[in-house]
Amino acid sequence: LAGISQEILEKFRPLFNPRAIAFPGASKDPGKWGYIILNNLIKGGYRGKVYPVNPKEAEILGLKGYSKIEHIPETPDLAVIVVPPRSVVSVVKDCVKKGIKAGIVITAGFAEIGGEGKDLQKEMVEAARAGGMILLGPNCNGIMNPADHVHVQFPSFYPQPGPIAVIAQSGNVVDSVARQIMLRGHGLSKAISAGNQADLTIEDYLEYLGEDPQTGVILGYVEGIEKGQKFLHIAGKVSRRKPIIILKAGSSEAGAQAAMSHTASIAGSDVVFDAVCRQTGIIRVSNLNELLNIGMAFLRQPLPRGRRVGIVTGGGGWGVLAADVCARLRLEVVCLPEKTIKELDAFMPPWWNRGNPVDLVANVQGDNVFKAVEVVLDCPKVDGVLMMSIMPALQPGRLSSPAKPGTGKGRGGEAVQAVVEVIERFNSLAEKHQKPVIVASEHMFADAVMETQINYGLGQHQAICHQMPHQAARVFQALSNYADYLNRT
Amino acid sequence: LAGISQEILEKFRPLFNPRAIAFPGASKDPGKWGYIILNNLIKGGYRGKVYPVNPKEAEILGLKGYSKIEHIPETPDLAVIVVPPRSVVSVVKDCVKKGIKAGIVITAGFAEIGGEGKDLQKEMVEAARAGGMILLGPNCNGIMNPADHVHVQFPSFYPQPGPIAVIAQSGNVVDSVARQIMLRGHGLSKAISAGNQADLTIEDYLEYLGEDPQTGVILGYVEGIEKGQKFLHIAGKVSRRKPIIILKAGSSEAGAQAAMSHTASIAGSDVVFDAVCRQTGIIRVSNLNELLNIGMAFLRQPLPRGRRVGIVTGGGGWGVLAADVCARLRLEVVCLPEKTIKELDAFMPPWWNRGNPVDLVANVQGDNVFKAVEVVLDCPKVDGVLMMSIMPALQPGRLSSPAKPGTGKGRGGEAVQAVVEVIERFNSLAEKHQKPVIVASEHMFADAVMETQINYGLGQHQAICHQMPHQAARVFQALSNYADYLNRT
Repeated sequence: LAGISQEILEKFRPLFNPRAIAFPGASKDPGKWGYIILNNLIKGGYRGKVYPVNPKEAEILGLKGYSKIEHIPETPDLAVIVVPPRSVVSVVKDCVKKGIKAGIVITAGFAEIGGEGKDLQKEMVEAARAGGMILLGPNCNGIMNPADHVHVQFPSFYPQPGPIAVIAQSGNVVDSVARQIMLRGHGLSKAISAGNQADLTIEDYLEYLGEDPQTGVILGYVEGIEKGQKFLHIAGKVSRRKPIIILKAGSSEAGAQAAMSHTASIAGSDVVFDAVCRQTGIIRVSNLNELLNIGMAFLRQPLPRGRRVGIVTGGGGWGVLAADVCARLRLEVVCLPEKTIKELDAFMPPWWNRGNPVDLVANVQGDNVFKAVEVVLDCPKVDGVLMMSIMPALQPGRLSSPAKPGTGKGRGGEAVQAVVEVIERFNSLAEKHQKPVIVASEHMFADAVMETQINYGLGQHQAICHQMPHQAARVFQALSNYADYLNRT
Repeated sequence: LAGISQEILEKFRPLFNPRAIAFPGASKDPGKWGYIILNNLIKGGYRGKVYPVNPKEAEILGLKGYSKIEHIPETPDLAVIVVPPRSVVSVVKDCVKKGIKAGIVITAGFAEIGGEGKDLQKEMVEAARAGGMILLGPNCNGIMNPADHVHVQFPSFYPQPGPIAVIAQSGNVVDSVARQIMLRGHGLSKAISAGNQADLTIEDYLEYLGEDPQTGVILGYVEGIEKGQKFLHIAGKVSRRKPIIILKAGSSEAGAQAAMSHTASIAGSDVVFDAVCRQTGIIRVSNLNELLNIGMAFLRQPLPRGRRVGIVTGGGGWGVLAADVCARLRLEVVCLPEKTIKELDAFMPPWWNRGNPVDLVANVQGDNVFKAVEVVLDCPKVDGVLMMSIMPALQPGRLSSPAKPGTGKGRGGEAVQAVVEVIERFNSLAEKHQKPVIVASEHMFADAVMETQINYGLGQHQAICHQMPHQAARVFQALSNYADYLNRT
């Protein structure tokens, strides 16, 4: 088995960890992809050699230009191909001749436009396969591998390294997700814009990410799956080791048509994909926010043993909302046993509601909030806790006065530190009891700018504080669905 | 009819526009509500006189203290009551004797705890009604009326004046919503924390907000409705003039129990509330984000004449996602007629998808983006447009290089201005064609801090750019449901 993993990692090494890169189609025109992507690669701090290939330019972005691939003085691992569609086949043949093992075809105008494009794509793949070259794309935005400074990418931002991998059949979506990961202070292992999947397909990437030691959780955006059996086999195998969370698009007629013209994907039936998810343990989500929230939650939370939830809330309304969503998601808001109620009685005010949600009312603050969560975690009838509002735990009165909205001025670091400490205390309780504690809260004392700083600060600890009650409940459901899959297999 | 409106406004004047305020229960202890709320009222810039009433203090927060209400040298319009529950009845009686016309009872410990609390609440209401005094609460966080600087409130933030009203059976939720409105740069007309609704109920507030000239749209959080017929009558009447958007909680058994112990509300059946919404035109939402997004959209968007959507997208994946959600929400992603396709052909690249979503691919930028939207708006088969990603319209390459995430440093004002201009151009097209243009976009060039500044800047124009495709589609659905209600009645 270890041998197989090494083989897979080795196959993808030229793509994700190239020692040198050829760049056919590199350009001096800042409006062209051949400029934008080369520029982003350089700015991303790539450490190997880059060889722009362009018959008309002796120098591009400070790098010596080559008129032909064969003139490059060494054999690069990877070719980034940005030439017009009709030139791609011959470029791939040149790459093969040179001994290049991997290609990223950014260029669009292949199967997604039908007709001639379809034929070109077929020819291109045949040329690559005949020469033992793997191809990502065409019609894609490239890849990111922040840990190794490999940024063959369209957008000009640079997420930090971390455990979250993203793979998408849409450059647009892979960039969205990578960017959100960055903005929330989290880190990325790999971003893969799969494009038309002419040669390598989502199954190959999943298999690779399953082996990739840098990847802890896999987020996917999928428009269509063509190799059903292969997908079932690989997804099922990988998801036993790492959670896979997928947003599947094209489930409507309009969406399916759009997917076809977008990446030539056949969307397939929604019901079938649901069945695939049940069988493989894939967590299916219905929008981009869920994809991110659930992915990030897996990084730090122990898995629940079941679906029985205890809710502790600093605000009555949020408790009611959380309970509603739990019911809708078929989580059980359990009736707390007499023993737990009595333990809470010891420090709760006499008029507390003696129910689940445990409403902290206005009187329970500071350490008693953590005590309440721990009492509920300790209850054998409870598989985990939803904590609504960290305000009472934070005692914001201890912080200085609030900043003005939109100015970014104010207590800044002090507030971020305070929130991180509170969330980390909840995370410690989760770890101690081996039950998840999923927190949703506003930051009443913070302006919008400070709030983004708080989220960023939490991300730096791979922690997360959800914005709304329904998001926390959805995350709990996803954790318990995944736990259930692991128990079944 | 004008006479009736004046009567309603006059009834609520002492509550929302008091000329002077008595404050029984005012306190010098910064941990007590009697301090926090008085302090927030003063900091909020209230212009009338405030009379703290506390037998033990000669002075509170720089104001002369009064040992008894009867000693106050004038008759205040409003009493803010923060004394312990068992003292509330006698305080209300003192208020009545003094001729005070309205009371806000912050104090908790009434019907929501059952038993004695229930009796106290009944006695309190009887005393008030006997003296012609209206009561808000008990067990509430107070009110906000930013235009008149009346901030009888728990949280220490101050939204600017604007057209959005919030009414909630949860202080926690009303504060959440008011704060989000503020952080997004929008303005608030009134925030009402209705508490246990012992005297005034949600029906009364709805009727008032229906007449309130400062209110353009009403957001509500409801745990239970007791006066079914009255609610039907008033909500139906008000929603013919102003959109009412409601998040109803307590729909699950666990949620209903929590609602009972929270504000003594009887949650009632979910199915019944759905029927109420259909009959009254209320837009029911399922979480706090929807409540906000939809409320804000009503401020600037013309109503669609039907459910037929044109999607224009700057990113393939986002287009597919938008189409899917439209189908799920029973919006019709129409097949564009030959005429529209031909008009688009004139400036779209030859390989464009010739379908709906209209995928701008990488080649359509700047003015052509607006042109594409206008061509689709102009199509008689389309009732409005979802615009996915403003990146091509913005041409971010024209802006300077991106800032570092989380630092708040960078182009700031330039980027905010650029996005506001783009959104305003879409809003102008919407107005010109009298069809909505709902935009969702990321801001790829912006860091998290800048993004909050962008949202804030948009809010200052009562404009909104949604974060994700599913949110934009949901907003379109809400607009068309409301339009449908107006057409029916």
